[in-house]
Amino acid sequence: MSKSVELKNPNLSGMSSDFLYHLAINVPNTADTSDIQQRFGDVRVLCMGGTSSRMRDLAIYLRKIVAVSDDGEPVDLAAAGHRYAVYKVGPVLCVSHGVGSSTFSVVLHELLKLVMYAKCPDPKFIRIGTCGGVGVPPGTVVVTKDAYNGYLRNEHEIPILGKRVVRPASFADDLIKDILAYGNLSGDNFETISANTMSTDCFYEGQGRTDGAVCEYDEAAKMEFLQKCHNLGIRNIEMEATMFASMTQQVGVKAADVCVTLINRLNGDQVEITPETKADYEQRPFLIIGRYIQGLLSK
Amino acid sequence: MSKSVELKNPNLSGMSSDFLYHLAINVPNTADTSDIQQRFGDVRVLCMGGTSSRMRDLAIYLRKIVAVSDDGEPVDLAAAGHRYAVYKVGPVLCVSHGVGSSTFSVVLHELLKLVMYAKCPDPKFIRIGTCGGVGVPPGTVVVTKDAYNGYLRNEHEIPILGKRVVRPASFADDLIKDILAYGNLSGDNFETISANTMSTDCFYEGQGRTDGAVCEYDEAAKMEFLQKCHNLGIRNIEMEATMFASMTQQVGVKAADVCVTLINRLNGDQVEITPETKADYEQRPFLIIGRYIQGLLSK
Repeated sequence: MSKSVELKNPNLSGMSSDFLYHLAINVPNTADTSDIQQRFGDVRVLCMGGTSSRMRDLAIYLRKIVAVSDDGEPVDLAAAGHRYAVYKVGPVLCVSHGVGSSTFSVVLHELLKLVMYAKCPDPKFIRIGTCGGVGVPPGTVVVTKDAYNGYLRNEHEIPILGKRVVRPASFADDLIKDILAYGNLSGDNFETISANTMSTDCFYEGQGRTDGAVCEYDEAAKMEFLQKCHNLGIRNIEMEATMFASMTQQVGVKAADVCVTLINRLNGDQVEITPETKADYEQRPFLIIGRYIQGLLSK
Repeated sequence: MSKSVELKNPNLSGMSSDFLYHLAINVPNTADTSDIQQRFGDVRVLCMGGTSSRMRDLAIYLRKIVAVSDDGEPVDLAAAGHRYAVYKVGPVLCVSHGVGSSTFSVVLHELLKLVMYAKCPDPKFIRIGTCGGVGVPPGTVVVTKDAYNGYLRNEHEIPILGKRVVRPASFADDLIKDILAYGNLSGDNFETISANTMSTDCFYEGQGRTDGAVCEYDEAAKMEFLQKCHNLGIRNIEMEATMFASMTQQVGVKAADVCVTLINRLNGDQVEITPETKADYEQRPFLIIGRYIQGLLSK
């Protein structure tokens, strides 16, 4: 039986109202959230990705899948906040989170509170992203298993009240398995795999790139580092997985990180694919997650 | 005599072309960047802030100040990248950087390369933001001196090739002084101060808020933490200062972080000001930096 989300924060019960500041969504009365339930209570899947334009595209893509007949421009429900875009397509929210953990964690905290207030039944949080690959062909879709930080440790590090707190950062096997079942179908001209992911707060130095404004190591040291990643079963690098895995694990909601690689870092640092190829690659996680959502809703 | 920016990355000299991926700006020939110089070579100040809408407003605001007569909609020069907005108003770029260091560091690396390729003379990098205050009235403008991370250390920590690298994170006194000279003028109904800033990767747990989705401490522990911040001379909290100070210090470009407080964290966690008050507060750094730019250009 699906249950709604309970958050690990006893302080929330003492708040009579809550303003989800960055989403610009107001919860005027936490004791009676029927208005929020009416607006968002049917949400079963929250898809999140870096850019608002990609999330708008996803919202349009999902209309057919969730049988919403609407050919108007998707409405950004968080427009007043000016920071994140939120589109609702039937039981799916498509939310932009920006580049990296700092910006994603802000909206993730607020989305977790939103699904709690809205009493969404067992909501799934799915990040749909782009990433660099490590030893896999560009265009491969990677579903993250264990998330490694920039220290090559399978954990998330966060300073809380001035102290270093370390939390586990893995995604639940069952959702990974559910999603993988919709990959590698006949006709797919790309591979969908499950592997480990490294996530860093810095796209350049953090990921061992040599083409940033600052770089104090050479090509050989970079390749040694990428080889270490590969030895740990890491097949892609992005900027969100450890925080995302750790917070959703902490709260106890189901989550998955599904990214398409745009480059094989063992061959270089610069993203050199054409805009057309990029658009094609970006469709691949849409396809997999679209199938997953269709399956989920038909159950 | 103003000199152009030299980056601390010997690897760049081996690249025949460079694609500033997230800005979608192409440098087809690094040996002859005359096209980039023509487009951006006159830039003397780069203003950066969280949201594209605020940076658009700033671009419009600065038109009078830099004597650009244009009443059209500002053009986003990085629109094709879908991640950051870049507006050019005469010798000023207004660039959005998103929420926090992860997203800001990406665009900062690329902007530093841009000013190098464009041979901009002694460019100033100025972040214009909103923040939480610690023991100062909401609406106060804070110009950051030393940037503290979430461990309450005046440094920036970053994993590079798997190792912990710690770098200094302070802003240069002379630019702080130059900017402060334009604060507290007669008629200003708010204070402009110089103080230390804490910056964190997490808006909720990282800043000691009790209203996030996860919180494992209580109000008393939070207040003790905020008091510690106050004792260190920290008067505002945001999510960018340590990375920003450290990278600009590393490269040797002049930078400043100028933020207006929207809340006094010693009194609560929720941002409760009206949209009108917020809009009024957000104008204050525009006013100070507008005066500074006017002064700089008249020299």
